[in-house]
Amino acid sequence: MQQFAKDKDIFMALIVHKYGGTSMGSTERIKNVAKRVAKWQKAGHQIVVVPSAMSGETNRLLGLAKEITHQPDPRELDQIASTGEQVSSGLLALALQAEGIPSVSYAGWQVAIQTDSAHTKARIKSIDKEKVLAELNLGKVVVITGFQGVDEKGNITTLGRGGSDTSAVAVAAAMGAEECLIYTDVDGVYTTDPRVCDEARRLDRITFEEMMEMASLGSKVLQIRSVEFAGKYRVKTRVLSSLTDPMIPLDIEMKSGTLITFEEDPKMEAAVISGIAFARDEAKITVLGVPDKPGIAYQILGPIAEANIDVDMIIQNQSVDGFTDFTFTVPRGEYQKALELLKSTVQAHIAAREISGDPKVSKVSVVGVGMRSHVGIASKMFRTLSEEGINIQMISTSEIKISVLIDEKYMELAVRALHKAFDLE
Amino acid sequence: MQQFAKDKDIFMALIVHKYGGTSMGSTERIKNVAKRVAKWQKAGHQIVVVPSAMSGETNRLLGLAKEITHQPDPRELDQIASTGEQVSSGLLALALQAEGIPSVSYAGWQVAIQTDSAHTKARIKSIDKEKVLAELNLGKVVVITGFQGVDEKGNITTLGRGGSDTSAVAVAAAMGAEECLIYTDVDGVYTTDPRVCDEARRLDRITFEEMMEMASLGSKVLQIRSVEFAGKYRVKTRVLSSLTDPMIPLDIEMKSGTLITFEEDPKMEAAVISGIAFARDEAKITVLGVPDKPGIAYQILGPIAEANIDVDMIIQNQSVDGFTDFTFTVPRGEYQKALELLKSTVQAHIAAREISGDPKVSKVSVVGVGMRSHVGIASKMFRTLSEEGINIQMISTSEIKISVLIDEKYMELAVRALHKAFDLE
Repeated sequence: MQQFAKDKDIFMALIVHKYGGTSMGSTERIKNVAKRVAKWQKAGHQIVVVPSAMSGETNRLLGLAKEITHQPDPRELDQIASTGEQVSSGLLALALQAEGIPSVSYAGWQVAIQTDSAHTKARIKSIDKEKVLAELNLGKVVVITGFQGVDEKGNITTLGRGGSDTSAVAVAAAMGAEECLIYTDVDGVYTTDPRVCDEARRLDRITFEEMMEMASLGSKVLQIRSVEFAGKYRVKTRVLSSLTDPMIPLDIEMKSGTLITFEEDPKMEAAVISGIAFARDEAKITVLGVPDKPGIAYQILGPIAEANIDVDMIIQNQSVDGFTDFTFTVPRGEYQKALELLKSTVQAHIAAREISGDPKVSKVSVVGVGMRSHVGIASKMFRTLSEEGINIQMISTSEIKISVLIDEKYMELAVRALHKAFDLE
Repeated sequence: MQQFAKDKDIFMALIVHKYGGTSMGSTERIKNVAKRVAKWQKAGHQIVVVPSAMSGETNRLLGLAKEITHQPDPRELDQIASTGEQVSSGLLALALQAEGIPSVSYAGWQVAIQTDSAHTKARIKSIDKEKVLAELNLGKVVVITGFQGVDEKGNITTLGRGGSDTSAVAVAAAMGAEECLIYTDVDGVYTTDPRVCDEARRLDRITFEEMMEMASLGSKVLQIRSVEFAGKYRVKTRVLSSLTDPMIPLDIEMKSGTLITFEEDPKMEAAVISGIAFARDEAKITVLGVPDKPGIAYQILGPIAEANIDVDMIIQNQSVDGFTDFTFTVPRGEYQKALELLKSTVQAHIAAREISGDPKVSKVSVVGVGMRSHVGIASKMFRTLSEEGINIQMISTSEIKISVLIDEKYMELAVRALHKAFDLE
């Protein structure tokens, strides 16, 4: 791994490993994780491991709470849900000890992973690295529960689904780790989803900004907040497979997966697009004949936001004769709720002519930092879709991505055609 | 309940409830516990609840650890095992909230249940009552995890099996609670085990000292350390049933169960014996022809203690011609191990003539504070057994109990005969 060798002495680095629920799914799998971690430690590295709960455990715990009440207090939910990682962390420490590696596990509060008090979706503020460093310097592997922290009043908090990714990156940032390795059940970040396009190819590296777009556009390899964290603290993060033989040679493992970097790769100049992302289950809602006056967007989207419905793309057309049309997308599961909300409370209030929608639309996006310096990406995208007879319903762009909304039934076709058009095979 | 009315205003008391694993065994049962607690709180009391883990959960967690390694690190075991109570406590807080009762749950470390560092069998040193009081004064029911605490380094500790009883009594002592109610799946303390003797009768009250003897002699209603705690801090403790209708009227519930008191009951003067305790699975080992010289008891029992085998009764006979016989009892499960240990390492060293044993013996005890002032209890006990043709193999006495070791097959007969002889029906 050149990147490593270039920067620092790879042979004595502090490295954070993160293992997901599937990797921790049984005591047999936990023993495999221990073998892999032991291999890294025996090679001379200092290792901090951040595991998720055993797969299914968080759902089991939340299911118990749901049996009690359908509107559980978030503080108590966090007390309950945080135990899954405490168990898996303890088990991993035991498995490491059984491999002859001194190890100790800590719950979030024990190494002071301080968060705000937003239960079930807290954000990390700080971590006390001294305690962890002291254990590392005693030759121990330190296991720290993912997904959780503690607020300033001593309440346990959790970071939301996928929060263990964020924990791992935050620990890596606080410890000044050389690299954060996110072990998961896929072997890296792909140009698009291999289940949709056979030609999908694993990327050796991807820039932080591209990863941000890929994550927010529906590529579920990493939780988006963990990518934000990696970007903010410039944590070199690698996504790689936990399904390989744990005793795979270290030099091969170090080159596997996808590295998220902070520089554009000079070698990759030709590849202006690094991937095709998509989100299948979208829905769009259009408010027709809205008087075009200040505050109208807020009057439409305010009630939607208050109902905790995520809004993604938003388009307001040029007004004609003082009236305009307003369109936005929501997750398909929220479509009915959003539509009824608008019809019952908003329509009359803003004097809109009509409210219509389509719950069967998908979003397809091309992503790439190369896009900045290349004209013609958009036109190439639109021409490709046009040649396949696919109608574009909405368009939205950022510096490094272009997203289009299309009929759901053309989604796979669009992904494959774009993958080919942008030479991603 | 006179005792209450006599002491203090019952209508605004601080009361600790403890619920065992069976009472917390499902979300349905947890809802029932919440109904019962809500009833007490609505009657004007301040309530702290200490629940066990849901039944089976602690075993499940320890089973996972055992799948990893057969010699688990006690510190990590505590990290893992302590989660069971955190989950059940959170669920109970949710169930109370669903009943309209403000409630909050705390893990041991969150209310600073400080213990020593003896993992898996820690002892409580102190509890920060201010935090609990503040919540109570806000009108909340406070749920505190049983079974666990935190040492001065911030490691989670557990108190050993049955430790939630001890937690509850310790919380009651620290808070200066009016009473500690131990809800369990039996409805109190009996004169003997009803499964052995049909005539067994529930005691309305029992002295602390009698309860200590009953608990140490095999009556498993309360963990013995919780009784020690109750005695040390004079916590009025009541054992009662969680299987009654949770909406049973409070005045009836207050009179139910068995109260552990610190005064001998003047009304009970006639009843010199309050119960018959027994331990079925005992074994005895006799070392014959031991030279009677200083240090011989230590040379025999030292290796047994080092192997972590509990020794109960110990008898050394008067020596004859410089030789003596030495007999002691161990739990039946440890018999073979103890016997082999003695034969392989001790026998030659101390020049004993022979080592023999019997793995099928039981211990039966009569217990009662009245015994202090009454002669003839022992002779009545021995005569009763003699009349039934039961041979006494060993005898051991304390101020308020007499224990005998007999052939296992006569145990039930002995219990019933003594129960009748001492008018316990």
